[in-house]
Amino acid sequence: MNSKSIRQKEIAEKTGFSINTVSLALKGSPRISEETRSIIMECAKQLNYIPNVVARSLVQKKTNTIGIILTELMNPILTETAQEIEQILKKSGYNMMLMITNSSPEQEAEALDVLVSRQVDGILMYPVFTANFAKIKLLRDNKFPIILLAGGDYELPTDAVYVNRREGAYKAATHFIQAGHKRIGFLGGGNYSDKEKQNGYFAALQDNHIPFDPSLVGRVQSDGYDAGYASIEELYKNAMPTAVICTRDYIALGAMRWCRERGIRIPEELSFIGFDDTAAASFAEIPLTSVKYDVKAVTEKATELLFQRIDEKDKSVAMSIQKISIQPRLVIRQS
Amino acid sequence: MNSKSIRQKEIAEKTGFSINTVSLALKGSPRISEETRSIIMECAKQLNYIPNVVARSLVQKKTNTIGIILTELMNPILTETAQEIEQILKKSGYNMMLMITNSSPEQEAEALDVLVSRQVDGILMYPVFTANFAKIKLLRDNKFPIILLAGGDYELPTDAVYVNRREGAYKAATHFIQAGHKRIGFLGGGNYSDKEKQNGYFAALQDNHIPFDPSLVGRVQSDGYDAGYASIEELYKNAMPTAVICTRDYIALGAMRWCRERGIRIPEELSFIGFDDTAAASFAEIPLTSVKYDVKAVTEKATELLFQRIDEKDKSVAMSIQKISIQPRLVIRQS
Repeated sequence: MNSKSIRQKEIAEKTGFSINTVSLALKGSPRISEETRSIIMECAKQLNYIPNVVARSLVQKKTNTIGIILTELMNPILTETAQEIEQILKKSGYNMMLMITNSSPEQEAEALDVLVSRQVDGILMYPVFTANFAKIKLLRDNKFPIILLAGGDYELPTDAVYVNRREGAYKAATHFIQAGHKRIGFLGGGNYSDKEKQNGYFAALQDNHIPFDPSLVGRVQSDGYDAGYASIEELYKNAMPTAVICTRDYIALGAMRWCRERGIRIPEELSFIGFDDTAAASFAEIPLTSVKYDVKAVTEKATELLFQRIDEKDKSVAMSIQKISIQPRLVIRQS
Repeated sequence: MNSKSIRQKEIAEKTGFSINTVSLALKGSPRISEETRSIIMECAKQLNYIPNVVARSLVQKKTNTIGIILTELMNPILTETAQEIEQILKKSGYNMMLMITNSSPEQEAEALDVLVSRQVDGILMYPVFTANFAKIKLLRDNKFPIILLAGGDYELPTDAVYVNRREGAYKAATHFIQAGHKRIGFLGGGNYSDKEKQNGYFAALQDNHIPFDPSLVGRVQSDGYDAGYASIEELYKNAMPTAVICTRDYIALGAMRWCRERGIRIPEELSFIGFDDTAAASFAEIPLTSVKYDVKAVTEKATELLFQRIDEKDKSVAMSIQKISIQPRLVIRQS
């Protein structure tokens, strides 16, 4: 007996209606009176049973559409993610419905609702942490195939395939430490993925017995060149680092420009490592060392797992949550 | 009587079946025998009537889905186009099904077929010139809302909203001519949009009575930094230009790097203008003058026109093809 049947049985027992009536009510059948339906829906809500529209999509046939939810599209990693997923889906006979959340939890919740009501066969999403994890867990509990494209050392509501950002920052900091640096700065934003990187940076300092100085952590307001250019001055003047880990290549490139304009030599006086290994990093005047985000590995494994979940949906197998963490690689250049 | 009815009447007259039978056959109704259907379909094909699947979608209700077909996603202009369209569609209650053609005419034809069979309410597309114009015209003739995001001084099969690239290159070349340049190079690819730019460059030379030297036109193999870096040498050594128009910012930035490495001063010895006004152009060491592609203007006008076409679909108004050409602006910097 699958989890759906178990839940319907529970609702039937609690409300006194037959399983058949419960099933019809949840499907929105006109054969069930409004009063009966409202009692059953209320009970379903209390039991965290999935909303009506999902129940309906679960009993209906495949749409060959996969929903993709991304926080934005202008970040080159996510652009490439969208492009790679589209190519893989097309080869497998699926189409892609793309939703962009602008990193807003409300827009993310809406995107989930819309895609489920459009009866997509599954969802791949880059989440706005951790705002809608309860909603995602509900979908997962009802065997709706949904895979996160981000994750880390914490409990996840569903399967996830992701690049281990913490490990990337750990490698970057270790690289600096091995080169003899003691004053290593960190320049990033306040979002979840940057915090993961910051934790990796902390761990590397700790493992190498380097005391942590809070003035070495600088904050940026966005992910762009401008943000790096505007934020490096304060960090540089307050903390006098000899090396800086930036949470994105563009932040590093903006910061490096500020240094060049002031005659600060890179890497002699100040070294940089960025994240993502974008084309801009390799083609900068001083090519930037960067933590590579392997988009192809993530999208291939994530779609593979999604297709497996779609196959399993109608079977009564208990699916344990899978976390597939991909190790990032440091691409060493002249910065 | 709308164009669909006129065509069905034509098919009825040619085959001897009633209009009702023709209509049912084209909709794929099981009430029509296989033999009758095949006669009617054969005649429909000869009259360039739209395939069955489209006919079906035309009589069915809205899906609130818009299909987007792009040649690629990694080009920053198309990334931004996809992102802007998604935002506008969402506000209007539509979802976006995204297809990427990799500039392949076959993949484009397939994308059109898939989106029509998925019964999207309309299509916005950046076409692979001019491979599927006949197919696009067929859709348009049957009132299927489809808007191109590119166009120029030639006959188009349907409505189009686009940045006038020819005009952009004309402005770039005129800017160089007014600054006193006589040896103006052109570095671009062989695709349609680059040819449009090349025509604008030719026109500006001609209007200013500057004789054209074929050695001043260089070819690149792709749109990236690498291509510009690899291609500028031949152009520079063969033609000795004092200024070069590059069909993309990245090509210009790659070429500028080659110059810097050889001590060629920019802009004193060699000036550059790129296309698209990307973030990389404004943030280059020597900020690059660039022809701005106004993504917001294109996507706003294109979606507005698409919604108008969707509204008009069920009315018997004759829609004349609209071409909305947006004038590009030259953003002048230090290159």
